[in-house]
Amino acid sequence: MAIPFLFLLFSLLSLSSSEAKVIPRFPSKLSASASVNTNHRPFKTKYFTQILDHFNFNPQSYQTFQQKYLINDSFWGGATKNSPIFVYTGNEGDIDWFAQNTGFMFEIAPRFKALLVFLEHRFYGKSIPFGGDKKIAYSNASTLGYLSSTQALADYATLIIDLKKNLSTIDSPVVVFGGSYGGTWFRLKYPHVAIGALASSAPILNFENIVSPYTFNAIVTKDFRSESENCYKVIKGSWQKIEEKASQHGGLKQLRKSFRICKNYISGNALHGWLYTAYIYAAMTDYPTPSNFLSPLPAHPVKQMCKAIDDPTTGNDTFAKLYGAANIYYNYSGSATCFDLDDDSDPHGLGEWSWQACTEMIMPTSGNNNESIFPASEWNYTNRANFCKYVFDAQPRPNWITTHFVGHNIQRALKRFGSNIIFFNGLRDPWSGGGVLKNVSKTIIAIVAEEGAHHVDLRFSTSEDPKWLQDVRKTEANIIANWISQYYHDLAHL
Amino acid sequence: MAIPFLFLLFSLLSLSSSEAKVIPRFPSKLSASASVNTNHRPFKTKYFTQILDHFNFNPQSYQTFQQKYLINDSFWGGATKNSPIFVYTGNEGDIDWFAQNTGFMFEIAPRFKALLVFLEHRFYGKSIPFGGDKKIAYSNASTLGYLSSTQALADYATLIIDLKKNLSTIDSPVVVFGGSYGGTWFRLKYPHVAIGALASSAPILNFENIVSPYTFNAIVTKDFRSESENCYKVIKGSWQKIEEKASQHGGLKQLRKSFRICKNYISGNALHGWLYTAYIYAAMTDYPTPSNFLSPLPAHPVKQMCKAIDDPTTGNDTFAKLYGAANIYYNYSGSATCFDLDDDSDPHGLGEWSWQACTEMIMPTSGNNNESIFPASEWNYTNRANFCKYVFDAQPRPNWITTHFVGHNIQRALKRFGSNIIFFNGLRDPWSGGGVLKNVSKTIIAIVAEEGAHHVDLRFSTSEDPKWLQDVRKTEANIIANWISQYYHDLAHL
Repeated sequence: MAIPFLFLLFSLLSLSSSEAKVIPRFPSKLSASASVNTNHRPFKTKYFTQILDHFNFNPQSYQTFQQKYLINDSFWGGATKNSPIFVYTGNEGDIDWFAQNTGFMFEIAPRFKALLVFLEHRFYGKSIPFGGDKKIAYSNASTLGYLSSTQALADYATLIIDLKKNLSTIDSPVVVFGGSYGGTWFRLKYPHVAIGALASSAPILNFENIVSPYTFNAIVTKDFRSESENCYKVIKGSWQKIEEKASQHGGLKQLRKSFRICKNYISGNALHGWLYTAYIYAAMTDYPTPSNFLSPLPAHPVKQMCKAIDDPTTGNDTFAKLYGAANIYYNYSGSATCFDLDDDSDPHGLGEWSWQACTEMIMPTSGNNNESIFPASEWNYTNRANFCKYVFDAQPRPNWITTHFVGHNIQRALKRFGSNIIFFNGLRDPWSGGGVLKNVSKTIIAIVAEEGAHHVDLRFSTSEDPKWLQDVRKTEANIIANWISQYYHDLAHL
Repeated sequence: MAIPFLFLLFSLLSLSSSEAKVIPRFPSKLSASASVNTNHRPFKTKYFTQILDHFNFNPQSYQTFQQKYLINDSFWGGATKNSPIFVYTGNEGDIDWFAQNTGFMFEIAPRFKALLVFLEHRFYGKSIPFGGDKKIAYSNASTLGYLSSTQALADYATLIIDLKKNLSTIDSPVVVFGGSYGGTWFRLKYPHVAIGALASSAPILNFENIVSPYTFNAIVTKDFRSESENCYKVIKGSWQKIEEKASQHGGLKQLRKSFRICKNYISGNALHGWLYTAYIYAAMTDYPTPSNFLSPLPAHPVKQMCKAIDDPTTGNDTFAKLYGAANIYYNYSGSATCFDLDDDSDPHGLGEWSWQACTEMIMPTSGNNNESIFPASEWNYTNRANFCKYVFDAQPRPNWITTHFVGHNIQRALKRFGSNIIFFNGLRDPWSGGGVLKNVSKTIIAIVAEEGAHHVDLRFSTSEDPKWLQDVRKTEANIIANWISQYYHDLAHL
């Protein structure tokens, strides 16, 4: 089972203190890996002709592109019964991948006789403007400019309304599931299109100064420290040791050997990034059951990594301990003979997400206080801005998201406005620090799972799921049932 | 006192069945008349550097322009007390004009110790993108493309947030007053920026097929018919008579004489439009006290016009009767010696509003059923589309407003979502047919005044105001007081 993908959206910025190294890294890796076989789920793949710019009326804005979506009507009760439509409002990646990783929707669809629809985000997967030509679409800021959260939300609203008309089912209630903008932001901006939203692990408070830039890594720290104080201390002390080794004559060679690095080229920074990635992704995906993202992972990967670090057979050899931990994350299947740090990736091989991280998705998550398992560092906006200027000639708009969407003082802002949103967060997920963890009102609900990780509620169930996870899913389904029955009541009377 | 301006926004489309004649007409006339002396209201005029395109990140989008706004702090309790901010979210016209015509805000400001702010709409007044050069800004679809409701709302959100930061009063509650998008749409899209909205005479249901295209003129019909059945019959029968006369040899000359038309050129169509304008504007501004829009008007202008038509001294002379009625609307001051039908206006002298009416503001209001006081006719989308193609090479997006904003099934859509909106409508206002006339929830309230006309609640009070109007304003102020006290309660506890 692959990991649900919200963290792609939000993870990039915390991977390293060096923006130039970090931002381009993950999208390329992920899109390369996103060729998921969805054959065993009976989707129909469809395309919708979408307008390029919903908010401008200049001649270019009227250009169109083909937006991909998947549809499964095997559970649907049909238009005559106004049966519900469950829509996954795609995050930033191939929609097939998301469909594969949102088993919850499949599993509850029969109960609700729901139509399942998965919408792909513009500029990702096959939903590429400018004739579907990625080379053109990603070529520069003039074409990438159309890649934004607001355009994507408007795509979703347009497509859903059109789809309902075409299916002659305009009175069917729509519930959205996300994953990224899909959840909260869609329900808040398009309440007339979706009667409710399940927003799983949505760090909508990770903007501006709403939560501290230390929060993300403080949770990673807590996760490892909760397994063992020694594990935390070994990792925390390791950065200095790596740096010292790297600066010694022949040190890089030794490091390469210790960590089984394939290529001759290696730097302390690249190794730092490689380990950092392993720790934060293990924290995000610290699921109670085995999972499979880029590579297979055991249940409780953080515990397993700490077990490797605490292994008495490695004595005082920090590098051997770290290697053991990294091996859990990068090589659980045991098939790798050496590792590629990907340090030779070209920062000009631009990812779509890098663009978003350089325009509106300015999420200060990479700070580390003195307690952090990572070296102390401050979030530095100027680094980001310089990187974006260099790579895209783009200027971030760091206040836009909180201007356009709810963010600051969310309890006050939404206490008397809005309804029918579930915020799920697992507290082992570093992104939960930017999530909504308290009920806002009777109908804007926070579900918090102490042992939960990123998106765990949306994943396919397994026979090994702990009771708390089964309970979370039951609660979510029951709340959704309540929205739908209220809607049918209103439909009959209004 | 000039008429509040919402109807500018929404009126254009109903003026005639001939799109090409109608759309360019009013904005030019109004902007020419909008040189209002605001000296007796102590405003400071300020400018805010606004971004050209909030929803796109291409290089052009980063261009800026100076958005004008007016501010009056003479009543304000100040930042230390988190005193409220009342914001008029400008309609499509000079902001000074709106400030002059929204006396309600001035009159209630002392009670609330409110700061008064009037924001100008982009592309109107002095708030012109492209270096403030109207010739460039209005030159073609590439520049006009940035004129849209969504961009204007985003301007307002951006400016308000920045203003509050600059005044160190980020916890002050903001209430918006409109007038057009300003009311409902702003509150719905930016609930974190405004705690509530007074939406006066906002015909937000006048889109797509939500209300019948006959509605607008059915209300004009009802207004005149309610004064006298004879008045209705004379006007209803007059169109045929004008047409017959115009087609006779020498008929146009006779019509010119009957209606004291200044210029030699006259057509039946132009006369039709001139009379139509008088009737619908009289209906919209059928206030219980004298007013002054383009020209001074008596109290109850529809009654006065019908009185002229019913005048027994004009016997069976229909044209003399119509002239008498038109004279009330066009020449109440008695200073005009002849009238200019404005029929020579160049359809390429484009108004900003024409652009909006050709892109997103597709409001089908010009239909007339058999009962109508105007000749029977159907709303014809193709006429609009052809006109827009011809004039701007623009293609309307008739479904966009209902896609992006609430419209269809508003009772159902907002019953469990949103709060703190007052919809005021006066039932003599033809635009009330597209208004929200029933409470949606406990906090989304409809105030309906049977004898009210367009925006009457927002106007400066006079000593002659009837009790129902005084009561409407009291109710509105009390509801706003309740929003603000709830907000302060929340501020203290959340």
